[in-house]
Amino acid sequence: MNQHQDIAALCAGRPVAIVGAGLVGAGWAIVFARAGLNVRMFDANPDITRKAVPLIEAQLAGLQRHGLIDEEPAVVLARITPVATLAEAVDGVAYVQESVLERVDVKRQLMVDLDALAAPDTVIGSSTSGIPGSAFALGLSISPRVLIAHPVNPPYLVPVVELVPSPETAGSTVDFADALMRAVGQAVVHVRKEVEGFVLNRLQAVLLREAWALVQEGVASCEDVDKTIRDGLGWRWSFMGPFETIDLNAPGGVADYAVRLGPLYQRIAESRTHEAPWDADLIREVESHRRQHLADADLEARRAWRDERLMEFAATRRTQDPRT
Amino acid sequence: MNQHQDIAALCAGRPVAIVGAGLVGAGWAIVFARAGLNVRMFDANPDITRKAVPLIEAQLAGLQRHGLIDEEPAVVLARITPVATLAEAVDGVAYVQESVLERVDVKRQLMVDLDALAAPDTVIGSSTSGIPGSAFALGLSISPRVLIAHPVNPPYLVPVVELVPSPETAGSTVDFADALMRAVGQAVVHVRKEVEGFVLNRLQAVLLREAWALVQEGVASCEDVDKTIRDGLGWRWSFMGPFETIDLNAPGGVADYAVRLGPLYQRIAESRTHEAPWDADLIREVESHRRQHLADADLEARRAWRDERLMEFAATRRTQDPRT
Repeated sequence: MNQHQDIAALCAGRPVAIVGAGLVGAGWAIVFARAGLNVRMFDANPDITRKAVPLIEAQLAGLQRHGLIDEEPAVVLARITPVATLAEAVDGVAYVQESVLERVDVKRQLMVDLDALAAPDTVIGSSTSGIPGSAFALGLSISPRVLIAHPVNPPYLVPVVELVPSPETAGSTVDFADALMRAVGQAVVHVRKEVEGFVLNRLQAVLLREAWALVQEGVASCEDVDKTIRDGLGWRWSFMGPFETIDLNAPGGVADYAVRLGPLYQRIAESRTHEAPWDADLIREVESHRRQHLADADLEARRAWRDERLMEFAATRRTQDPRT
Repeated sequence: MNQHQDIAALCAGRPVAIVGAGLVGAGWAIVFARAGLNVRMFDANPDITRKAVPLIEAQLAGLQRHGLIDEEPAVVLARITPVATLAEAVDGVAYVQESVLERVDVKRQLMVDLDALAAPDTVIGSSTSGIPGSAFALGLSISPRVLIAHPVNPPYLVPVVELVPSPETAGSTVDFADALMRAVGQAVVHVRKEVEGFVLNRLQAVLLREAWALVQEGVASCEDVDKTIRDGLGWRWSFMGPFETIDLNAPGGVADYAVRLGPLYQRIAESRTHEAPWDADLIREVESHRRQHLADADLEARRAWRDERLMEFAATRRTQDPRT
């Protein structure tokens, strides 16, 4: 069996559904279609569904340009079918990936609707970056089959996905989502408790908090903080996590590193008393630095630049998997 | 004038000195020699100086294999002269990069010796990752010409260098070090206050602190925390800093991002009450996870793998400078 057949077998030959077809939903459609699955795509706003198709076409063209898909874009695109109703989208699918508006009431209403419409074995993943399943997915017949599957944008380039069960999620649901996500090429992180921000945004949050504080206290400029990451720390973190980084950075591994550098890091932790990192004046100051560095009118071009870099990075990564 | 001549002019045709020829000192020797400067290399332990030469040869061979030097390794190596005494090393040099043992008493003794030996206009940079100049470089006639120039290892691959003046460092010393470091290809970060850990290790410290806490609290495994960075956050951070990342991640830039996601990040900051990240039991637990993942006997091979990845990364970066 080839890889596409393995994935089809996992879903018992059934399609998957994308609910919410904005940037995140469209990105997920590419992930599943690229892996050979048929995808039904729905958005409550038909304008968004309509715009998603050319967006996906453009993204597939970029993937082909960088050697990141093995088939013609048209072949992949043909697996994605926009549909007009939620009922049509989820009818008999193996999996639903929801990426609707990041609001508890909107997510809850969708769960109630899915409770009425979804097949009794359909698994449902939510793209939310911050709302735990407990806030919108409890007390329904589908609740054991709902979990968070939080991607980084765009999911067809950056592989990490956080799986976060609610207290009512069944173990078999986590197992299925784990197998499906690995099969379509994602890197699964299991978040075992519903903590604020899950793992990814917590790690980003602490780095940003220190970054804000260093600018506020006049230790470094906004640009120099950025440079410290992109010309320094970020190089290793692009192929090793923080634990592997320090494990390799002392002759005797991580425990040896802790003996050598733990006291310094402990003092750094103790010295951080900054309590209000997202301060309005500070945000204005950084905004002003950033706009001197990159004019408002150039934001969109720089985003295209970023997406090109990510595709180049993904192309390199294809031949050098750090997981092996 | 070519680039090498520009750099020679900056140093008025004088060589530079490496004091302390371990891994960090040998790495700096490559940075300066690759840029066309003559380098005198000294270590108080002649064994270390002797071992540095074949180490540098091996590193230059790696750089050539990855297309990261434009000259033959032998040409670059010929610019590096091991010398037997500190007096010989620093006689008439434009710049001294010290990378001696990370201990205040050792650094202080070196400064006293340099005070007696260095020419009256020689600038002295210290590679220390954690000791501020105030702790070892004050009250001498050289004090206005001493500053911290803290690299990431290895400095000939990862370009960032933190320049940290002490209260006695002259502005002209910072200006010279800034010009020299840029000329030899480093990315300069100006740290304007002597804070614990400077900028780079503070940013690393907060990420590690959260990483330790997530494992300790059972939120995620050590391997899954690593995966969140290397298959997720680290991709963007390898070519954009945290501020540029969020600036591009909301339609209206960083201020718009702060409106959208600030409250979540504020809640994350408030939820972090973990006080003792470098806990002995926790270190043992992570050490045990890491050794299951990577046996003690394989640490060295994995370090070689890391160095290959860094060289591949540097080769890609050569053609895609994110600073432009």
